Amino acid sequence: MSFYPPQRTLMGPGPSDVYPRVSEALSRPTIGHLDPEFIRLMDETKQMLQYAFQTENQLTLPISAPGSAGMEACFVNLIEAGDSVIIMQNGVFGTRMRENVMRIGAEPIMVEDPWGQAVDLNKAHDAITQHPAAKAIAFVHAETSTGVKSDAAALCAMAADAGMLSIVDTVTGLGGIEVAVDAWRADAVYSGTQKCLSCVPGLSPVTFSPRAQQVISKRSSPVQSWFLDMNLIMGYWGEGSQRSYHHTAPVNALYGLHEALSILQEEGLQHSWARHQHNHRALKAGLQAMGLNLLVEPDARLPQLNAVSIPDNLDEALVRRQLLQDFNLEIGAGLGQLAGKIWRIGLMGCSSNPANVRLCIAALEACLLNQDVSIDAGAALAAVNRFYSA
Amino acid sequence: MSFYPPQRTLMGPGPSDVYPRVSEALSRPTIGHLDPEFIRLMDETKQMLQYAFQTENQLTLPISAPGSAGMEACFVNLIEAGDSVIIMQNGVFGTRMRENVMRIGAEPIMVEDPWGQAVDLNKAHDAITQHPAAKAIAFVHAETSTGVKSDAAALCAMAADAGMLSIVDTVTGLGGIEVAVDAWRADAVYSGTQKCLSCVPGLSPVTFSPRAQQVISKRSSPVQSWFLDMNLIMGYWGEGSQRSYHHTAPVNALYGLHEALSILQEEGLQHSWARHQHNHRALKAGLQAMGLNLLVEPDARLPQLNAVSIPDNLDEALVRRQLLQDFNLEIGAGLGQLAGKIWRIGLMGCSSNPANVRLCIAALEACLLNQDVSIDAGAALAAVNRFYSA
Repeated sequence: MSFYPPQRTLMGPGPSDVYPRVSEALSRPTIGHLDPEFIRLMDETKQMLQYAFQTENQLTLPISAPGSAGMEACFVNLIEAGDSVIIMQNGVFGTRMRENVMRIGAEPIMVEDPWGQAVDLNKAHDAITQHPAAKAIAFVHAETSTGVKSDAAALCAMAADAGMLSIVDTVTGLGGIEVAVDAWRADAVYSGTQKCLSCVPGLSPVTFSPRAQQVISKRSSPVQSWFLDMNLIMGYWGEGSQRSYHHTAPVNALYGLHEALSILQEEGLQHSWARHQHNHRALKAGLQAMGLNLLVEPDARLPQLNAVSIPDNLDEALVRRQLLQDFNLEIGAGLGQLAGKIWRIGLMGCSSNPANVRLCIAALEACLLNQDVSIDAGAALAAVNRFYSA
Repeated sequence: MSFYPPQRTLMGPGPSDVYPRVSEALSRPTIGHLDPEFIRLMDETKQMLQYAFQTENQLTLPISAPGSAGMEACFVNLIEAGDSVIIMQNGVFGTRMRENVMRIGAEPIMVEDPWGQAVDLNKAHDAITQHPAAKAIAFVHAETSTGVKSDAAALCAMAADAGMLSIVDTVTGLGGIEVAVDAWRADAVYSGTQKCLSCVPGLSPVTFSPRAQQVISKRSSPVQSWFLDMNLIMGYWGEGSQRSYHHTAPVNALYGLHEALSILQEEGLQHSWARHQHNHRALKAGLQAMGLNLLVEPDARLPQLNAVSIPDNLDEALVRRQLLQDFNLEIGAGLGQLAGKIWRIGLMGCSSNPANVRLCIAALEACLLNQDVSIDAGAALAAVNRFYSA
């Protein structure tokens, strides 16, 4: 029997709402993964990803699997057994980086910052000084578990100046805030499709600098994953019309990504970032009028992922359940040590719009009133409306 | 700018034509990967995969990446460094199994059969006798590179009787010919969505026996791939309503797979196999009337993938180009040592139908006449029509 999903509004940590044009693109006729027309699609996708990442890196393409596989692709291609990697951890995804490094047989050097805070640049500097033999420094530009932005430009520059590679997680960043791979001098950067690109989940855009590409081609051991071996993937996604078969590309998913990237290009990166910022401010105005605070300090806030501190004595899971059941609205729970302490409200891609902000504020107010939280009914929505009409 | 693919008829080695219901399902509204409704989709998908694989294995689910990742999932979870694995190689995908085993730091014991022939059961028996310490025996049930079917029941039984695990590639088999995981006593079996299921490419259904599951949970080293670690994936796809987040599932791709499996269940496995067989016979009748021969001996032929020997002095690439340009028809080239020697004509999933058989025969005839191959014009189509009306 067919499965008909409910029509949700997706304001969690991703997937975000999908552009109708992207949904439609998914159902276009499937063609072969070696069809000349498909090669054209690949070339255009690569060019648009270069635009989104702001890079001229030749090795820029979508991995045929979700963001976690993009992360793994970066680590298994650049790092070999015996290497050491400095990992700046300030949330869930730093832990996952550690897992990746350990499974390679390499040594993770963990530098921790509190969850909800940006990576401390001084600590990064000290770690680089203390571990000059480390091959790479890895960090999360946009921490999906906490809503925190770290200073990717500064961290990548430190790595480059020390002759180390930089590995950057911007799964939640791409399209929502500035990602400037070449200007940062970043070496390996991965993202996801289901966040600020408003495409469906399942692909992971990655980009490797020429320096990273050289490291990959000069490895002393084969990449431990055949599926993620960039040496082989390059043969399929590379230059020219001769593409050697590596794996069967997820053709229709790539139609969706191509469409999402086309929309991003039509809107323009700067406009997209500004829109994410604008709707974030509107949401913040509404939350504050409801007495709700953001976990993260202003400088480090991701506009596309708002970590909201949950008031005491509130059944937060009940709120999320009610939002889903009564309003078809999904927001995210906290992860790991922030479980039960924060909600994660996403304003990503096409989810970042005034109608969603208003729906979220109105629905949240109804749920809070339901639990006898003392708030001034209507004040929050009024604050949002004031913001938008200012 | 949006990408609009041409409308092809896909009769290569996969992707095959996609059921219109599957295309439509892909564009249904995206919901969260932890949404209770999504959990229901996962449960139903698992049940329908159990039906397709004919298994009660609890650990039956789609890997969130193409068939190559399904292969890798089987090897990296079951095999550890220092293990040895007997690989029965009779085509491209045996070579890839070898790559997988080597990248684990395990030892592949290669047993070769000529491309185009089934795995020799005597050789398998000898290899098992000579290498009693091997942990597993791996083989390809349905070789996509040659159109050959091997005797999975016999090979899995030999492995089980010798206390070895069996790892079975049936990427091209599932839904097109009998796959009977429990009856075979197979331990790890992987497939793809873009072949006889007529879904889009991008997912890899896998199933692990309880014995395999035990091997995975008792490993002495962590699985080298975090993304493909079945211990972690089980936490997300497992029993009960509590699912722990591992990676973001490719939600819309799973809508497509669910729909394709629903169609398979509606048709019934036996009917699907019979249909594949029937249209294969029609195609064969047409090819023979054109003077074209199949590479593979009758007993080992896959009905869903027909390896056609190319006559001498024919520009085979020109034929394929003309089929694509003039008829929007894709057939496959040979791979590896069979490049230039065979075409691969797929009749998979919904591509396996009388209209496609007629189109293929008529178009191929036109291309051959174009190259002055001496054939009796019209005889091939007449043979096909005779077959269908018999």
